[in-house]
Amino acid sequence: MDKTITINGDNVKLSEDKKAVILIDQTKLPNSLEYVTVQTAEELFDAIFLLKVRGAPAIGIAAAYGIYVLAGQIETDNYEDFLDKFRKQKAYISSSRPTAVNLSWALNRMEGIVLNNSDKSIFEILALLEKECLSIHEEDMAMCLAISEHGLTLIKDGDGILTHCNAGPLATSKYGTALGPLLLGKERGMEFRVFADETRPLLQGARLTSFELNQAGIDVTLICDNMAAMVMKNGWINACFVGCDRIAANGDTANKIGTSAVAILAKHYSIPFYVLGPTSTIDLNCENGDDIEIELRVPREISEKFYVQPMAPTGVKCYNPAFDVTDHSLITGIVTEKGICRPPYRESIAALFR
Amino acid sequence: MDKTITINGDNVKLSEDKKAVILIDQTKLPNSLEYVTVQTAEELFDAIFLLKVRGAPAIGIAAAYGIYVLAGQIETDNYEDFLDKFRKQKAYISSSRPTAVNLSWALNRMEGIVLNNSDKSIFEILALLEKECLSIHEEDMAMCLAISEHGLTLIKDGDGILTHCNAGPLATSKYGTALGPLLLGKERGMEFRVFADETRPLLQGARLTSFELNQAGIDVTLICDNMAAMVMKNGWINACFVGCDRIAANGDTANKIGTSAVAILAKHYSIPFYVLGPTSTIDLNCENGDDIEIELRVPREISEKFYVQPMAPTGVKCYNPAFDVTDHSLITGIVTEKGICRPPYRESIAALFR
Repeated sequence: MDKTITINGDNVKLSEDKKAVILIDQTKLPNSLEYVTVQTAEELFDAIFLLKVRGAPAIGIAAAYGIYVLAGQIETDNYEDFLDKFRKQKAYISSSRPTAVNLSWALNRMEGIVLNNSDKSIFEILALLEKECLSIHEEDMAMCLAISEHGLTLIKDGDGILTHCNAGPLATSKYGTALGPLLLGKERGMEFRVFADETRPLLQGARLTSFELNQAGIDVTLICDNMAAMVMKNGWINACFVGCDRIAANGDTANKIGTSAVAILAKHYSIPFYVLGPTSTIDLNCENGDDIEIELRVPREISEKFYVQPMAPTGVKCYNPAFDVTDHSLITGIVTEKGICRPPYRESIAALFR
Repeated sequence: MDKTITINGDNVKLSEDKKAVILIDQTKLPNSLEYVTVQTAEELFDAIFLLKVRGAPAIGIAAAYGIYVLAGQIETDNYEDFLDKFRKQKAYISSSRPTAVNLSWALNRMEGIVLNNSDKSIFEILALLEKECLSIHEEDMAMCLAISEHGLTLIKDGDGILTHCNAGPLATSKYGTALGPLLLGKERGMEFRVFADETRPLLQGARLTSFELNQAGIDVTLICDNMAAMVMKNGWINACFVGCDRIAANGDTANKIGTSAVAILAKHYSIPFYVLGPTSTIDLNCENGDDIEIELRVPREISEKFYVQPMAPTGVKCYNPAFDVTDHSLITGIVTEKGICRPPYRESIAALFR
């Protein structure tokens, strides 16, 4: 397996003939490295819905490439007809997952190109769309590097870091967000001791985070989610680094289910808890966490998926939210490519946009 | 499957010919109900070590029956010889799991019979040992009922209860400890809404707690451990009920890994957090939680066990403690068969023994 595969930003890319999106199938990791080729709207919807591509920034990049590929399939020379079909595809793709803001953010940027160039030919619009989706990808790589630099100022050589779910190269592009400072620090000769929550039910921490950190030669220990309190109590954790799927105006942050528990535990043990993510993750339309829609997923992810045989009685009820909201009062800082926000977040986040 | 199998106290019993211990193999639940017959010291060690029988009180009962069966196999008429062989078996069985105090407690009670009857024949001693192990079992059933009665005073009809791991009939005898008040209340026509943490890595909550509550017709919802904070935040939980493996003199309580996290979360959300267990679980030789040895188990329970294929990279390090210590400051009450202890625990626990 190519050692550099997950850290060079090609986990999501456009095919050479520009007629498909090529994705690492994250559901197959760490046991095999497989690429999927996405050419239709249904394939793109499934790739996002089934978590073949996951991580808010990576979903945004995949959606941008995807809507470009789908736009190229629209057979018309008429602008209104093109716009109408483009918007139908956009609405369908946008419905694949509700919580991550980057999905609609990237699709809105792509739609903006179509709306702002109604005077141009479809051929010219397609060329601009291609430029835009490549820009979204390149900007994400630059953002991840900037976030990584900022994050690296929060920790020192030898620190113990706890992370939940996966916000590394696979979830973004290049360095990642929550894992970015660790990968960047490692490149500069620093050593860290990372504890990765396995992150039930879909085990992104076990399957992806420990895989990425192992590949990078970083000391990583996998724990079950319920062990985080113990490693904190043991004095092994100097900081918690997590990614984010949507940040409200007051700093309330939606991220993988279990993140708020990590924050409460960190507060209890006086350990700083940092959220790392690009400003595209901040949704000013959400006043606070109550405005963020939380995706509920199927019970069988808890009760039977991944197992040789069912691990719970047939038909047992499961409550299976895919994310939760971490109250801003539990967050020590929000690290963006523009710097680190500190409480009060309503002011510090608003200042990012002035 | 016999609907009443887990609540009638025969999850651990002596065979009719008194030459074996018969156990429900808890590792096979909920997919099949299988009994194992234990006749040798090695079989008993494995049954405890491999969690075929688990739950501190059930382990104590199994060990008591087991040492009686093994004593019956000692071929001697000489008291000193008998005592020596008895103690060797006892030391071996006692080493099968270090954290639960009931294991050594039950074995010490059985040894006491041998020590206090040195004037009697081996035949007479064996008869007294049989009586003692049956007493241990019967006392446990009575204790579970008493604990259940006390616990039931803490909740009301319609309450939402969160529990971690399994402290029901399978882990004890008859009603259980943490699940006892729910089962007893149900018999009296009360309804509860229970949330069961699945309890990684061995999924006792998914496999056993949801199985037992389902059988009893109690509304149970299985969640991943990292979802407990969210159901609390949702306002669905009125109280947390957990069992215990060892309670120190100051109230610090060792229970399944993840229990302390539930307690911290409960404190954060101002939800009462109750530990339920018999006084045999209290170890006055432990000043506080630091004196309690925490069992570390094999990494593969996290990284590969139960899965069709490995869920983490080959050779990834895992930190896999089987229990953790919940600080007494996080515990609202300790429910014993003698009543409910409240802080300060050093006083209220000592009062139990006056």
